[in-house]
Amino acid sequence: MDNQMVKNGNKVLKTEAVVHYLLSRIRHAGVDPELLPGEMELCEKFKVSRVTVRRAIESLIAGAYIIRLPKRRGAFTNPEMAKSIPYPVGIAVDMGYTFSIDGSAAMALSGFLKKMGSDENCSWLYIYLNISSGESLENIIENNNLQGLFWISPCEKIFPELRRLTERRFPVVSIGTPFTSYYPVLEKNTILRNYAQSGEDIARFLLENGLRRPVYCGYPNESFRRFVEVLGKEGICFNPENLLAEPGEIEEKLPSLIERNKIDSISSSGAACRYNPLMKVLSGHPEGRRIALLLERSPITLQYKRDYPNLNIRLNGENTIQKYMYRAGIQAAELFQKLIRNPGMVYDPVVIS
Amino acid sequence: MDNQMVKNGNKVLKTEAVVHYLLSRIRHAGVDPELLPGEMELCEKFKVSRVTVRRAIESLIAGAYIIRLPKRRGAFTNPEMAKSIPYPVGIAVDMGYTFSIDGSAAMALSGFLKKMGSDENCSWLYIYLNISSGESLENIIENNNLQGLFWISPCEKIFPELRRLTERRFPVVSIGTPFTSYYPVLEKNTILRNYAQSGEDIARFLLENGLRRPVYCGYPNESFRRFVEVLGKEGICFNPENLLAEPGEIEEKLPSLIERNKIDSISSSGAACRYNPLMKVLSGHPEGRRIALLLERSPITLQYKRDYPNLNIRLNGENTIQKYMYRAGIQAAELFQKLIRNPGMVYDPVVIS
Repeated sequence: MDNQMVKNGNKVLKTEAVVHYLLSRIRHAGVDPELLPGEMELCEKFKVSRVTVRRAIESLIAGAYIIRLPKRRGAFTNPEMAKSIPYPVGIAVDMGYTFSIDGSAAMALSGFLKKMGSDENCSWLYIYLNISSGESLENIIENNNLQGLFWISPCEKIFPELRRLTERRFPVVSIGTPFTSYYPVLEKNTILRNYAQSGEDIARFLLENGLRRPVYCGYPNESFRRFVEVLGKEGICFNPENLLAEPGEIEEKLPSLIERNKIDSISSSGAACRYNPLMKVLSGHPEGRRIALLLERSPITLQYKRDYPNLNIRLNGENTIQKYMYRAGIQAAELFQKLIRNPGMVYDPVVIS
Repeated sequence: MDNQMVKNGNKVLKTEAVVHYLLSRIRHAGVDPELLPGEMELCEKFKVSRVTVRRAIESLIAGAYIIRLPKRRGAFTNPEMAKSIPYPVGIAVDMGYTFSIDGSAAMALSGFLKKMGSDENCSWLYIYLNISSGESLENIIENNNLQGLFWISPCEKIFPELRRLTERRFPVVSIGTPFTSYYPVLEKNTILRNYAQSGEDIARFLLENGLRRPVYCGYPNESFRRFVEVLGKEGICFNPENLLAEPGEIEEKLPSLIERNKIDSISSSGAACRYNPLMKVLSGHPEGRRIALLLERSPITLQYKRDYPNLNIRLNGENTIQKYMYRAGIQAAELFQKLIRNPGMVYDPVVIS
């Protein structure tokens, strides 16, 4: 790695940080010209050199955002430009390092940006959070003058900080992880998945296909409870032996369930840790092809379906995680706009299917 | 800034970089277990400590992506996990620093992610480029095993590198800036705005509203040429005096055009540098309210309309820059998928309205 390049790269990022800060001051100042902080104060605030601060100021003078009065009277905001400066919103995923986002988080982001962009009354600037730059979340919010945060699947470690922000009535909207109902979620201003609905969808699929003796691979969560409830209403009593909660139970117990309990179907949530042993057991068992294997439709499960053409793999419904996350992103933008319009409000979770 | 936090933050980012690299090796290895590079080799490659490399490997062993054989025979890819690893795609805006994206770039990203996510045959991991981390673009591509790049409004400085990648048949799809037809654009694998169409839209709007003596504020580009052409076909000869190319000409020349040339309308492209003097001249002129001021619909122009209720501001059409950029993002994803499906191909620009 070339050290000179590191330096240059950081310089650009640091200039940009100062530019963002000054722009936010200009917008905030509105119709009255306001004296901006002096160069030394900015150097101190951003821990950058005078050259960096000057570069930031010069670029804003060139764009007419800042007016410099002669005889060292200082740099002032240009009120005429105030309205063309968008409001900064922070975007974060997981821990807030924003190195990468996976397909489902990307769909949430897509939905969020689409909905935010369709509000013609406000223009936004999206800033990817980069907590690893070493600043605290509070500092990042202050220095970028963020008006709010959109956090996709925040990890538990960051919850205390997000709760504090919500207590202070700073707008933070989150989307809980769509993969498991066991993962903890925030209590306020959040979009949550209706897991019960997916349990109901699986039960309905079984009923429609005349399958009556299912194995359920997954933890006994909300989704499982509704699954059992819906089957029960139709006179099907779910055999508790047929619940394989831990991925490790699949190889151990599934063969005997096929033989002894005469199961006709398997529903599995989760990832490769469950899918791989399922494929292994079913491929190797003489009755494996008879059994309907019901999986959530996704690029990965489609790949399994292609790789195991001899198994009876069924991908349920149209309601994929990708589509759910897109809807969740749209809902998150609606909630975000509600928070911006109603400062001081805090909302209960929005639970969607 | 807390130095300990900087260190911890960087450590996490560095671990993640090693994890991404190893995941890409696992996916690439496919059905055969492959010996992964040793710890020292990884330390050297990523310029990180042995602790960082070990942390990356341990997390992948925990997830069953890597199998470690005893007696120092090394760490191997787990073929069973190969198919659940998505393909990494780099996302960049402007220079590729990814600090922030504005509302229109956000719409392009939204469209791109939506379209990419609707392809159920492939799962993607999106990595925001951060050239400022000091690595070259080539290094970033190699270390993250990127399968392609999506670049929104690349700035001219990065063109040579992007052209080299395209020559090597590496998939890079870009969207040219939607704001001006003067800005240079890439020649291949790019989505470009049909500026002529927006000139035609403006001319049609004038014709529909019986406006025959327009001023055109903007550079005499493609859009302007079509504008003049469409008016000409309807028997309206555009008066060349009524072209105000430079923003600075507005305050100077507009008053006399109102009085002498009896103009009935003004069409302006651009930003605050044109909008502000227009508002100033029209507000201060006794005939200012008579003149239809035609602007492109956007959050900013809506704000002007609210701020100057006494002026005759008309926001044209439904075809806003935001909506255009969303469509451009979708087109970019289609082009990207075409490039992935047809390695070695290079496509001419896709010009859309």
